[in-house]
Amino acid sequence: MITREEHDQAVAYTAEQFAATGIELTDAERAQIEVADFGLGNLRETGLMLLVYVNTDRYCAKELVLYPKQTCPEHRHPPFEGTPGKEETFRCRRGTVDLWVDGELITLQPGEQFTIPPDTLHWFQAGEEGAVVSEFSSTSRDDLDVFTDPRIVRRPAVD
Amino acid sequence: MITREEHDQAVAYTAEQFAATGIELTDAERAQIEVADFGLGNLRETGLMLLVYVNTDRYCAKELVLYPKQTCPEHRHPPFEGTPGKEETFRCRRGTVDLWVDGELITLQPGEQFTIPPDTLHWFQAGEEGAVVSEFSSTSRDDLDVFTDPRIVRRPAVD
Repeated sequence: MITREEHDQAVAYTAEQFAATGIELTDAERAQIEVADFGLGNLRETGLMLLVYVNTDRYCAKELVLYPKQTCPEHRHPPFEGTPGKEETFRCRRGTVDLWVDGELITLQPGEQFTIPPDTLHWFQAGEEGAVVSEFSSTSRDDLDVFTDPRIVRRPAVD
Repeated sequence: MITREEHDQAVAYTAEQFAATGIELTDAERAQIEVADFGLGNLRETGLMLLVYVNTDRYCAKELVLYPKQTCPEHRHPPFEGTPGKEETFRCRRGTVDLWVDGELITLQPGEQFTIPPDTLHWFQAGEEGAVVSEFSSTSRDDLDVFTDPRIVRRPAVD
């Protein structure tokens, strides 16, 4: 659970980061920025801000924004509906992001990218300047994500 | 057919447009920028510059760059290998782009996007300032594209 103030601060930070990266948004999109604290109530440490551009039954594209040193906790995208699960490519746009995939560390600078196979454990953390990361993928079903920490609830909750 | 000089000018223009849009590239990616004149030999009028970020058997992401008033000619993405054909979302990043889909005109400003169904005739033209357009899609098979103008050859040729 996060407070309305934390939520609004996170949305404002996300919009600033997009502006600094040269990413233009419509007003409707700005209102759709999602703030995820994964139910842990410590957004600045563990969480993520997201904007979904498109998510069809074939492909998905999003922007991910992280506060400095903020972590998206370990999870995997399991098989569903006859697919092998979500395959995704992270492309760093601003700042840096450390990405652990099956225990291996990959650091992405702006312009660098990495593709994560389906159903593979991964987590990531922004560097000291935070990060903006584009995600290109097969269809996204966040509700099916399997997190290693059993306390995690993916659906956002704002007090 | 385009000359080596036309090709190199187009790559330099593309890199400048990426820089102006805040899009960072690796050196390896800069070397992969594709210049397509569609075999018509009049690049500034009819053509397109592309950079493919990723193209798996499930999804694809590219950046498209156009000179001022440059046109990507009418084509469709037909069904293949049991799929309905490529579905794609164009998101304008810089400049403007006029997109005709099945005869309907959609003008995209920066931050605006449109999704084109599979196997649907479409063409597009940049505005007076040129354009940078992100494309998110299902798997891309440019070699299968069906162009309305029978003179068109999709594979690039540099003299």
